[in-house]
This record gives sequence, C-alpha cells and structure tokens, in this order.
Amino acid sequence: MTQSTEVQWSNEERGIAETALKKAYDREVKTLMEGIRKQISLLSVPDDVWQLHDLLSAKRHDIDGKYDHREASLLFTLSRLVKDGLLEVSELEGLAADKQAKVKILTRM
Amino acid sequence: MTQSTEVQWSNEERGIAETALKKAYDREVKTLMEGIRKQISLLSVPDDVWQLHDLLSAKRHDIDGKYDHREASLLFTLSRLVKDGLLEVSELEGLAADKQAKVKILTRM
Repeated sequence: MTQSTEVQWSNEERGIAETALKKAYDREVKTLMEGIRKQISLLSVPDDVWQLHDLLSAKRHDIDGKYDHREASLLFTLSRLVKDGLLEVSELEGLAADKQAKVKILTRM
Repeated sequence: MTQSTEVQWSNEERGIAETALKKAYDREVKTLMEGIRKQISLLSVPDDVWQLHDLLSAKRHDIDGKYDHREASLLFTLSRLVKDGLLEVSELEGLAADKQAKVKILTRM
C-alpha cells in the first residue's frame, strides 16, 4: 500500500485559500473589464466586434480552467495566481508554513 | 426529368443583392456595437462580463447563419432581412420584378 502524499487542508486554511482565489478572480475580471472598455472605445469596423468576442472566449476558457479549487490542485492554483501577479504571497498568511513554502517553490518553476 | 425551379440571377442582380446584404450586415453590427457599449457602461460584477460574452456568442451564431448569399438562398436571406427591419424593399430596386414580388410575399410569411 502506497502512502498518500495528499496535502491536508484544515477548514481555516481552506477559508484562506478560497478568499485568496476570490480576490485573484475579482482582480483578473476587473482587469478584463478595463481591457474591454478600452477595446470598446476603439470599435469601428465589424471585425472589431468579433475580435472582442474571440478575446472574451479565450479569456473565459482560460479563467474557467485556472481557478481549480479542488484540494489536490489548490497549491498549484495558488502558485499560478502568484506567478501571474494576481496574488501576493503575503495574502496566503495563515496557511501552514510548508504550504507557503511549496507555493513559493512552485512560483519559481 | 424535372424542370429546374432555381431562380436565375444576372450579374447585375447579384451585385444589387450583395450590396443589400452588406448594408444590412453593417446596420446589424452597428446596432450590436451600440448594444455592447451600453452593456459595457453597466458592467459591475464579474458575471456581467460573461453575460456580455454569451450575448456576443449568440449574436455571432445568429449572424453567421443569416447572411447566406448562395443563389438558392438569396431570396430567403433578403426577405428575412426585410422582415427584421435591416433592409427596405426599396433597396432591392433593380432586381427583376418577380424576385421583388417573391421577397415581398416571403416577408409576410
């Protein structure tokens, strides 16, 4: 029998992670909204509308896959968000030291 | 042998139809742009962005199917555009009288 290497999450830690994910998500969508507003002001020919649609489709697909909050994925999710500049490591305070360390290592990969 | 009932289009008529389609398309996309601008000004929560994306996806799908300019479909395409208020029958002047009459009949269906 192999030993499980799954990271264990306390309720408090899950709460911290969920709050961090929510913050990153709100920031990402806010930036997206600003991008859309800029693009809208430049709309002139019909193709611009479809380009905006393409951008939104790509962003939605990206975001849908990115905020994976299953426990087995959480450390990867959080580190990607830090890497993308959507989260600060300091916003993960309260997670066990080994989790914070793993996130830091993953962001450097 | 069955007789072909396909409508025949002269080059001049095709030109008139293509110009009419282009006008309708430009009008439809212009209206869509105005709708997007309004919706953008109301963007506040993240879900608003995805609602905008849903609207654009639906519109694109609708428009992609609507401007069918194959000769066999042209009279149906034109009559639908008249029905939708995107074309005036007067913009089809120059088409043979029987074609104009068919479009008028189809718009009432």
